[in-house]
Amino acid sequence: MALVVQKFGGTSVADPERIKAVADHIARTVRDGNEVVIVVSAMGRTTDDLIRLAGEVASPRPGRELDMLLTAGERISMALLCMALGDREVASISLTGSQAGIITDSAHGKAKIVEVKANRIRDALRAGKVAVVAGFQGVSGSHDVTTLGRGGSDTTAVALAAELGADCCEIYTDVPGVFSADPQVVPDARRISRLSFEEMLEIAASGGRVLALRSVELARNHGVPLEVRSSFTWEPGTIIDKESAEMEQAIVSAVTSDASEAKVTVTGVPDKPGIAASLFRALADRSVNVDMIVQNTSTEGATDISFTVPKDDLDESLEVAMSLAPVIGAGSVRSDSEIARVSIVGAGMKTNPGVSATMFEVLARAGINIEMISTSSIRLSCVVKESEMERAVQALHKELGLG
Amino acid sequence: MALVVQKFGGTSVADPERIKAVADHIARTVRDGNEVVIVVSAMGRTTDDLIRLAGEVASPRPGRELDMLLTAGERISMALLCMALGDREVASISLTGSQAGIITDSAHGKAKIVEVKANRIRDALRAGKVAVVAGFQGVSGSHDVTTLGRGGSDTTAVALAAELGADCCEIYTDVPGVFSADPQVVPDARRISRLSFEEMLEIAASGGRVLALRSVELARNHGVPLEVRSSFTWEPGTIIDKESAEMEQAIVSAVTSDASEAKVTVTGVPDKPGIAASLFRALADRSVNVDMIVQNTSTEGATDISFTVPKDDLDESLEVAMSLAPVIGAGSVRSDSEIARVSIVGAGMKTNPGVSATMFEVLARAGINIEMISTSSIRLSCVVKESEMERAVQALHKELGLG
Repeated sequence: MALVVQKFGGTSVADPERIKAVADHIARTVRDGNEVVIVVSAMGRTTDDLIRLAGEVASPRPGRELDMLLTAGERISMALLCMALGDREVASISLTGSQAGIITDSAHGKAKIVEVKANRIRDALRAGKVAVVAGFQGVSGSHDVTTLGRGGSDTTAVALAAELGADCCEIYTDVPGVFSADPQVVPDARRISRLSFEEMLEIAASGGRVLALRSVELARNHGVPLEVRSSFTWEPGTIIDKESAEMEQAIVSAVTSDASEAKVTVTGVPDKPGIAASLFRALADRSVNVDMIVQNTSTEGATDISFTVPKDDLDESLEVAMSLAPVIGAGSVRSDSEIARVSIVGAGMKTNPGVSATMFEVLARAGINIEMISTSSIRLSCVVKESEMERAVQALHKELGLG
Repeated sequence: MALVVQKFGGTSVADPERIKAVADHIARTVRDGNEVVIVVSAMGRTTDDLIRLAGEVASPRPGRELDMLLTAGERISMALLCMALGDREVASISLTGSQAGIITDSAHGKAKIVEVKANRIRDALRAGKVAVVAGFQGVSGSHDVTTLGRGGSDTTAVALAAELGADCCEIYTDVPGVFSADPQVVPDARRISRLSFEEMLEIAASGGRVLALRSVELARNHGVPLEVRSSFTWEPGTIIDKESAEMEQAIVSAVTSDASEAKVTVTGVPDKPGIAASLFRALADRSVNVDMIVQNTSTEGATDISFTVPKDDLDESLEVAMSLAPVIGAGSVRSDSEIARVSIVGAGMKTNPGVSATMFEVLARAGINIEMISTSSIRLSCVVKESEMERAVQALHKELGLG
């Protein structure tokens, strides 16, 4: 008998028909002899609707009351799912984040799980019931309801799977798995059947939207195997697990892209110790989330530093950079919000040194100029013009033979 | 400094504009120097919408999961109200039934409050905050969320007012108070400025829909003065309090009506001890809620017994009566669902023996036949044809000079 955690996102429970389909699938899983723990998100656009409603009543700020409001969403979907399971003669019990023992810090709107006290879930399983747990939510030490922020339900599922020692954590969504590129950009993109945690981390960090970075990190840290699957077709999806030695690794698994950032360049920065530190400390103090940083070797005692930040943080970043430039003796500050980052990810890149050259050649042949480059051991990212992003993804996917 | 409990029903918080108006009123109450505890219902039709949604997913039965679903409603309204209070610089904290310490039995869908552990509310008041509590909901000893059923939010408000020793419990609704008759039936019906608990109990029990019977009972038992007021005009409403000796009492305060019941008559019942008991025990065993019972003095060793039951229970009642009639040696069983009960209520009736005669004369002059009569010390009810109900109310209201 296996213990399976299944997480259903908002599109998987968007309406009564979808909820009934999910209940059918859970019933099948139970009848196959598994112990089952379900994590469920709010139905469809419920969370957005509640935020909009809050905006009509007040100036909603992240905090205790917004969390109280938003947690109504999972309460509705989990209760409905348990009723549908009841109709299928599957015993179940819904549990709020608090009832399920998801203990968090008190950072409302972006709480972190600090402990899982899964007694009630274990009791439910012992009693032969499916435990249906509200994703995205927890309770702080002061008994206030909290939400986990973006990717929260995935994180709930992985945390429960880790705590319970589940055999697998299945993440159901509206796509059949992780693809070699966004199928809307690259029609012949291929579903990847298996990825290492490290590859999935790089894919998530470089623009892949199927899984939130934090849930993949948590899964890696606790060795929880994940499977991303479709709740519309129920076919096998993408398994994300420890890198296995016996398996030959694809050099490149996926091409990803991300147009959410803007670029800032500070020119004529004196090439002296501590200059970069003072700039990025100032940005960090303003909570600006800097992503890529590129600094070239200096010529004539000065250098250019470029970095990317979320577009929402661009104005603040420019303010910081411009006020600091005269202090550190730098030249001008420029920015460009019409950029995109295109990345290739693959565990095999570690042992195949020619991949970067291939990427640059492909982009060159397509007439696409590279503005910045950054690398990790299994990822290679180039900043290009936003208008050329899709073409870059298509060219790389084709030339690297991923279709 | 007074401690005030204010309860706002669904129509009072039906949309963002109403919520903001309520927040303005609470802010005024706080600035007038009061300590304030708020009890809030779900917005408008939220509860009905959730029940409809449940019906699209499953066959919803009262129970743990339906309660989990429905309690999402107050969670939304109370969080929004706290956000609106925040915009008005009024410190507040929302509390679910569980957080507010509303401990109930485990009868899901119709739970009874067994204890109020108001520590968190007292903490909030000590910290200078308005406590905004979810009405209608509580938590059972086994940590499951429960709902209190019909009139639940009023009951929450009165229970909190009793536990906290509040100076007043204000029930805000969409009408300006309790009226001498339904203003839709009697256009010149008058708002009653003051009622005793006993009068309000009789009004609630005989068809007045402004306050639920159980909340009035709780208020009487704990001596909590109530005021029913409009959240649309904010003008003074109807105060419900202990009967005061100094006040001259109106003989008749209100005319009420109720068309929700049906009449069952068992004819030729042998006039022997235990016969009535066997009939009404059988009905009670099927959980049929019998209201009026009338038995005439017997003629020739047999009598007729008539009783009224909710229309929903008529089929079951007929089944019971028909299967029992041959056993107890009774004659036929007849029923009529086209009936209505018209009542007059007034504390002064106790000391004015002529009131019943007046009522019968008024109905006779209007050509309205009386089918059954029942009385309490401060109420007099007549069953008439449903089609004559409104005319009976209008005639009584006019002839008794209540306008």
